[in-house]
Amino acid sequence: MNEKKEIYLDNSATTKVFPEVAQLVMKIMTEDYGNPSSMHMAGVNAEGYVKEATEKIAKTLHIKGSSGDLAKRIIFTSGGTESDNLAIIGAAESMKRKGMHIITTRLEHPAVLNSMKELEERGFTVTYLGCDERGRIRLADLEAAITPETILVSVMHTNNEIGSLQPIAEAGELIKRIGQDTLFHVDAVQGYGKADINPVKMHIDMLSVSGHKLHGPKGIGFLYVADGVRLKPVSYGGGQQGGLRSGTLNVPGIAGMALASEMLYSTLKEDTERMYALREHFIKGLSEIGDVRVNGPISNTDENGTYIAAPHIVSTSFKGVRSEVLLHTLEDAGIYISAGSACSSHKRSMSSTMQAIGMSEDLAGSTVRFSFSTGTTEEDIDTCIAVLSDNIPKLRKFVRM
Amino acid sequence: MNEKKEIYLDNSATTKVFPEVAQLVMKIMTEDYGNPSSMHMAGVNAEGYVKEATEKIAKTLHIKGSSGDLAKRIIFTSGGTESDNLAIIGAAESMKRKGMHIITTRLEHPAVLNSMKELEERGFTVTYLGCDERGRIRLADLEAAITPETILVSVMHTNNEIGSLQPIAEAGELIKRIGQDTLFHVDAVQGYGKADINPVKMHIDMLSVSGHKLHGPKGIGFLYVADGVRLKPVSYGGGQQGGLRSGTLNVPGIAGMALASEMLYSTLKEDTERMYALREHFIKGLSEIGDVRVNGPISNTDENGTYIAAPHIVSTSFKGVRSEVLLHTLEDAGIYISAGSACSSHKRSMSSTMQAIGMSEDLAGSTVRFSFSTGTTEEDIDTCIAVLSDNIPKLRKFVRM
Repeated sequence: MNEKKEIYLDNSATTKVFPEVAQLVMKIMTEDYGNPSSMHMAGVNAEGYVKEATEKIAKTLHIKGSSGDLAKRIIFTSGGTESDNLAIIGAAESMKRKGMHIITTRLEHPAVLNSMKELEERGFTVTYLGCDERGRIRLADLEAAITPETILVSVMHTNNEIGSLQPIAEAGELIKRIGQDTLFHVDAVQGYGKADINPVKMHIDMLSVSGHKLHGPKGIGFLYVADGVRLKPVSYGGGQQGGLRSGTLNVPGIAGMALASEMLYSTLKEDTERMYALREHFIKGLSEIGDVRVNGPISNTDENGTYIAAPHIVSTSFKGVRSEVLLHTLEDAGIYISAGSACSSHKRSMSSTMQAIGMSEDLAGSTVRFSFSTGTTEEDIDTCIAVLSDNIPKLRKFVRM
Repeated sequence: MNEKKEIYLDNSATTKVFPEVAQLVMKIMTEDYGNPSSMHMAGVNAEGYVKEATEKIAKTLHIKGSSGDLAKRIIFTSGGTESDNLAIIGAAESMKRKGMHIITTRLEHPAVLNSMKELEERGFTVTYLGCDERGRIRLADLEAAITPETILVSVMHTNNEIGSLQPIAEAGELIKRIGQDTLFHVDAVQGYGKADINPVKMHIDMLSVSGHKLHGPKGIGFLYVADGVRLKPVSYGGGQQGGLRSGTLNVPGIAGMALASEMLYSTLKEDTERMYALREHFIKGLSEIGDVRVNGPISNTDENGTYIAAPHIVSTSFKGVRSEVLLHTLEDAGIYISAGSACSSHKRSMSSTMQAIGMSEDLAGSTVRFSFSTGTTEEDIDTCIAVLSDNIPKLRKFVRM
C-alpha cells in the first residue's frame, strides 16, 4: 500500500492479521511444518498445535470437554463459506427423512442464501423471514414459520452490511421449545470475536466462523457442531476430522485463527465498549453533515439496554452521492471503506439485505459501509468525519443520479 | 522440533515452506491484507497478487491467455482434496444427462476414491482399473473400459504411496480419440512440481494440485480447468472465481503457492535429475541390506528411457520389521518417514494401492515410504542407509509378526 497514513475502515471485508498471529503462522510454516496425520514427532507436534487451537476456541465459546470431545465440536474449514455450506447442506441432507422444510432470513450472507437456493433445487422448501426497517427479524414471524416438517433454522448473528444483531438466544429457545429436533444454525462470521456467544446456552447447534474477519489468516474458518448433531460431509477424502471434513489440516491457519480468537476474547469487554462508544461518536458526527441515513440500528441498544447493533459496523446512505464516488474520494484521503458489502465478488445489484429493510434502489446506490477494528481510534473517526464534512457538500454539487 | 540434526524424508506427506514463500505470506498477511473483492486500493493490490499468481501458475503449465482467460483456467481451492472433489463431483453432476459412467483406478488417493463412492451412491457407475505389480495401469484396460456412457476418466499422475507414474499423455490421447466429450481429470498432487505437465498437449481437462506438497502453504491448492469444461460448483456463496468456488480468496496462500511453483519449475530439470540419482543411490544402498522389497517401479525409467517412477518417492517393505517399529527407530535417529501414506488420517487397513499391486497383508505391515525434497542431499541418504543397515538386523531379531 502507499505511504500516506491509512485509515482502514473496511474490517468487515477483511482484517489485518495480528503481528503475533503472523509470527506464529510463520514459525509453523518454516519450523513445525509436519502433517498432523504423520506418526513421527513432526506430525505429533503439528497435531499438538491443532489440539491446543481447538481448546482455545472451545474456551471462547464456553465449551468444556475432553480433547476427543472438543475435536468433534470444532471442525476446521477453509472459511465462512465452507462452514455455512457444511452446516446447511450437511444438515439438510442428513435430516431429509425427517422433513424438507428450512427457515432462514432475507438478511443472510450469500453463502447461506445460495446454499438455500441449491437446497431448493434439491426439493427442499425454504421460508425466508423478513425484518423490520432496522434489519431485525421478529420472533413472532419465526414462531409462525416453524412446522413439524422444519428440520433447520439458520439465522445470522450479525448482519455484514448494516450491523443489525438478531435475537439469537431468544430464537434458539423458541426453536427448541417448539421442536427439540429442529437444528439451529448461526452464521457468526461477523459476530464471533465481537460478542460473547455461548452456543450451549443459546441452543445453537452449528456456528460458522471465519478466521480472516478476526485478524486471523485467510483461508481458514471453523464450524462449531453441537454434541449429537450428525451432518453429511460436503467433501470426501482421507477421513480427517472424523470424516466430516477431509484434507490435510491447515495447521498454521488453525493455530493462527485460534490465537487471534484468544486475543480478541481476552479483551472483549473493553474493546467492544470502546468500539460502541466510537460508533456513537461517529453517528453523532455523521448527523451533523445532514441528509445522511444510518441503515440498521441507530442506537447501540434497545430501550431495555440490550445490544441491537454490532460494535463495528456503520452503514450509511449519503443522499445524492454515489457510493463508488464517495469510496474513491475517501480512498484519496487514505480512508478505506466499502460500497455495500465486499464479501461478495463485485456485484452491482441490490443485496437481499437492502431489499429486506425496504431500501429504495436510489438510496442503495448511495450506501457505504464503515467497519471498525479493535485498533480503530477516535482520531481515525474524527479524521473520517472531517473528510466527509469537507467532501459530501462538494460531491452533492455534482449530482447526476 | 528437537535440536538433533533432522533428516525429513516425509515430503510426500507435507513439505517445509520455502523461506521466500513464508516471507511473502507474512508480508501479505500484515501489510497487503486487503480483500480482492474490495474496490479500494487495498483490494486492488490484493487482486493484483491473485492475478500475478494465476499467471505464474499458468506459465508452469504452458498455458497462455489473457488475464480473464487464465482466471477461468486456474481455480483456487483449499487444497488437493477440494480440487479432486470439485473436479470429480462437479464434472459428474454437470455431465450426468450425457451418461452416468466414470472410470478411475484402484491406485487413487482417498480424495478421488471417496468422491467416486459418493457418486456411486448418487447412481453413477464407476469402473476401477487395476494395474501391474509395479503400480502402472494398462492402456488396453482403459480402452476396454470406455463406453459411450463414459463421461469422466480420472487417473492420478504420481501415486502417493509407491511413486509409480501413469502414462498420462497416452491415456489422454486414447480417451479423446474414443470420445471427444469424455472429460479427463488428473490428480497431480504428487506430480506437479516434480514433472513437466502440459495439460493442453496431454488432453487433460482438469488437474488437481495442492500447495503444501510443494513447499507452499497448507490450506491452498488449485484446480486447472480446460477451456469449455463446465463444472457444477460443490459449494455456494458470494460468487468469487466465476461462481465456481465462492469464498474470500486466500491471497497469502495463493501468492505463496504460486511463488513456490515458480521456484520449483525454474530449476525443475536439475532438481529432478539430482533426485532421480539420489533415488537410484538409495535403492542400491537398500539392496545391500537384504530381504528388502522396493514397491512400485524399481528403475527410474522403462526400457525406452521413459520415466516410470517419481523422483522423490521410494516405498519399501523390510521383511520381518513392522513399519511402526521402523518408523520410530528412524525417528530416534532424527529421520522422519511415513508408514504407508500419511495423507489419510491414521488408518490401519491396507490401502487400495497396496491391494492393487497384490501386496500381501503381512508385507503391507512392513511397508514404509521415504520421500525426498529438492533439499535432500546424498549425505542425508547415506546417513539413512547407515541407520537402516545398523538397525534392520537388530529389529529382525525381535520379530513377532
